[in-house]
Amino acid sequence: MPSPEFFRVLPVSNALKLLDERWQPQPQTESIATAAALDRILAAHIHSTEEVPAFRKSTVDGYALRAVDTFGASQSLPAFLQVNGELKMGEAPRFSVGAGEALLIHTGGMLPAGADAVVMVEHTQIAGADEIEVLRPVAPGENVIQAGEDVAAGSLVLPRGQRLRPQDIGGLLAVGIARLDVLRRPRLGILSCGDELLPPDAGVTPGKVRDINAYTLSALAERYGAQPIRFGIASDDFADYQRRAEEAFDACDILLLSAGSSVSTRDYTRDVINGLGQPGVLQHGLATKPGKPTIIALCEIKPVIGLPGNPVSALLVAWQLLPSLIARYVGQPLDPPRLVRARLSQRVASVTGREDWLAVRLTEGDDDMPMAQPIFGKSNLIFTLIGADGLLRLPLNTGGYDAGSLVDILLF
Amino acid sequence: MPSPEFFRVLPVSNALKLLDERWQPQPQTESIATAAALDRILAAHIHSTEEVPAFRKSTVDGYALRAVDTFGASQSLPAFLQVNGELKMGEAPRFSVGAGEALLIHTGGMLPAGADAVVMVEHTQIAGADEIEVLRPVAPGENVIQAGEDVAAGSLVLPRGQRLRPQDIGGLLAVGIARLDVLRRPRLGILSCGDELLPPDAGVTPGKVRDINAYTLSALAERYGAQPIRFGIASDDFADYQRRAEEAFDACDILLLSAGSSVSTRDYTRDVINGLGQPGVLQHGLATKPGKPTIIALCEIKPVIGLPGNPVSALLVAWQLLPSLIARYVGQPLDPPRLVRARLSQRVASVTGREDWLAVRLTEGDDDMPMAQPIFGKSNLIFTLIGADGLLRLPLNTGGYDAGSLVDILLF
Repeated sequence: MPSPEFFRVLPVSNALKLLDERWQPQPQTESIATAAALDRILAAHIHSTEEVPAFRKSTVDGYALRAVDTFGASQSLPAFLQVNGELKMGEAPRFSVGAGEALLIHTGGMLPAGADAVVMVEHTQIAGADEIEVLRPVAPGENVIQAGEDVAAGSLVLPRGQRLRPQDIGGLLAVGIARLDVLRRPRLGILSCGDELLPPDAGVTPGKVRDINAYTLSALAERYGAQPIRFGIASDDFADYQRRAEEAFDACDILLLSAGSSVSTRDYTRDVINGLGQPGVLQHGLATKPGKPTIIALCEIKPVIGLPGNPVSALLVAWQLLPSLIARYVGQPLDPPRLVRARLSQRVASVTGREDWLAVRLTEGDDDMPMAQPIFGKSNLIFTLIGADGLLRLPLNTGGYDAGSLVDILLF
Repeated sequence: MPSPEFFRVLPVSNALKLLDERWQPQPQTESIATAAALDRILAAHIHSTEEVPAFRKSTVDGYALRAVDTFGASQSLPAFLQVNGELKMGEAPRFSVGAGEALLIHTGGMLPAGADAVVMVEHTQIAGADEIEVLRPVAPGENVIQAGEDVAAGSLVLPRGQRLRPQDIGGLLAVGIARLDVLRRPRLGILSCGDELLPPDAGVTPGKVRDINAYTLSALAERYGAQPIRFGIASDDFADYQRRAEEAFDACDILLLSAGSSVSTRDYTRDVINGLGQPGVLQHGLATKPGKPTIIALCEIKPVIGLPGNPVSALLVAWQLLPSLIARYVGQPLDPPRLVRARLSQRVASVTGREDWLAVRLTEGDDDMPMAQPIFGKSNLIFTLIGADGLLRLPLNTGGYDAGSLVDILLF
């Protein structure tokens, strides 16, 4: 017998809001190598302990010199300077540059003491074995980047909460930060339950079916940046289910329970969840199809989701909930979904009071627009979703869409 | 002295086409666990060796029975059937259902021999300890899914070239395929060269700079599904550069050389590349800024890219080339870039005959549109890109955009 709140179904967004209002995620941090930190979230502001550049550098290929020696120089009246050799890349200058002297230097080369500017090689001419003509004047500081001009010591390189991109990793390594503290990826625990379930590498025996939800949910978690942990299959026995749910709960940050099809398991799930901690079940029943019998709960500081056992329902509900939970855990905005605009091949109806999700295949349309063909499957098996390119959402109370309507398909 | 073809710069897309026309990727395959195959590409068609479902199943909670026993049943004239117990989830039926008999069964339960339909529990009434009334007739096959109805044995589950999604992993496991052959991710070799370069965990000494390109390029490769392999730093000595490039080339599928700033290294790179195999350098010089001195080459069956040493140039050029090379290697279409429409805060100019890329910061605009503010950096250091949210492309021969123009910003 379902409990009363089962019939007070809520739209997914409202149910998520119930959870969001009560949930204060307490993300853990961990120290990792900067080189392995792509897409991880900084746990703290990062300040530079060094200045960049670490020394005065030339920004061009040319000659380091004293700017004053070039004042008034021109094509017709060049300044003659004595060249005291070449500064090879990676070398520190061994001599300073005196009046009337120059040093051949390359882009990124360290400016020698005495020099205060660099003339580009294009604005010079070889005048002898160790002599050049400078054909135009350079100002003090010209073609030179000063020490600390890009990054001053102590300045903020990247703020807490930054999701690290390739350039961020480069910038951190440029100032010598080879390790850093990032938020731990949320550990997403997954426990399946049902006497009919077998591990997927087992042979199917009469009456049994392979548990695939643990694996589709793992893949979904991975796609959205969580770390899935599978806790196997609990039996339909209440004590076993409860014990295994407690073990999983203790070892994860967000727990998904994928309940079996038996009536007893369906009934057990809410009791098992309520046993994990306060406040427990917040909502039982979502105004969405597939996915109506979903449970949304918060136990202590961890969200717990009771998913339907049907593989399509479990995956589609998790796909609506997980990205939001994971983004919330690490304090990041939700990435926008990938959409394709398409023309609907046939009329689709929807029922008032719930959101419907329909698997569609995208094919070439008559105009430039792809055609979205709904896929209807008798048994709502995972193979419906394998044949699909995306999902069509029929919002609450739309009444459906006519054939030929322009619709947004969510790639899935 | 740059060689003549350096001045015959080509737009990036034309240079990529030169490579595409000659390159026949020969991707390797590897066998991995299906559970770990998210986003990997199937190397061969996958056919099912099993049928799904493996046995006849009920699609509802109800009573398995012989349809003929319910013909003519109604509310006023129900059919009385004897209930021979309950089939628990995961059990195989031990008895067959005879005339006038029924078995309590749950969704997904295995149909007993003798039964050919299931009546929903809502259409029945308990009549006694072991007896029910059936209140409406059911047709043969009603609420039953036949063995093999979803997937026939031998049928195609997923085609070669499919990029595996969570539902695909579920479908493969549902038919017992726990391992499969996928394309190996392309091994992207990265070799830096330059006497001025230090590993990023080293302290900076006068004249030296940390090599960050190997790490920004690794992160980029990772983001686009390649497997980066860093081969360290070669010196400015030609023989050392050549030897290390050959080692890297042998151990990867696509090779990136990030040349140092010294004139000799820049000159060496094309000779080193030509030494790796035929046809060698296809193009030296791209009509793009930053990134002009890029080399595009094909040596035997492997693309080799000579990147500029400047970290911003190297990263931006790699970002224009790598996704396309990786997608081509695994035979997948290129994912569309993520775009944000924004209003330009100030006029930006561009030079005829080349494509310009400008780092921009996105801020809140006056209208609903975000404002795109160009970031100009003196030394073109990586910190320009750290402060940026995306890139503005100024196509060939546009002449620039006026302040207030609506532009597409590529998130980066």
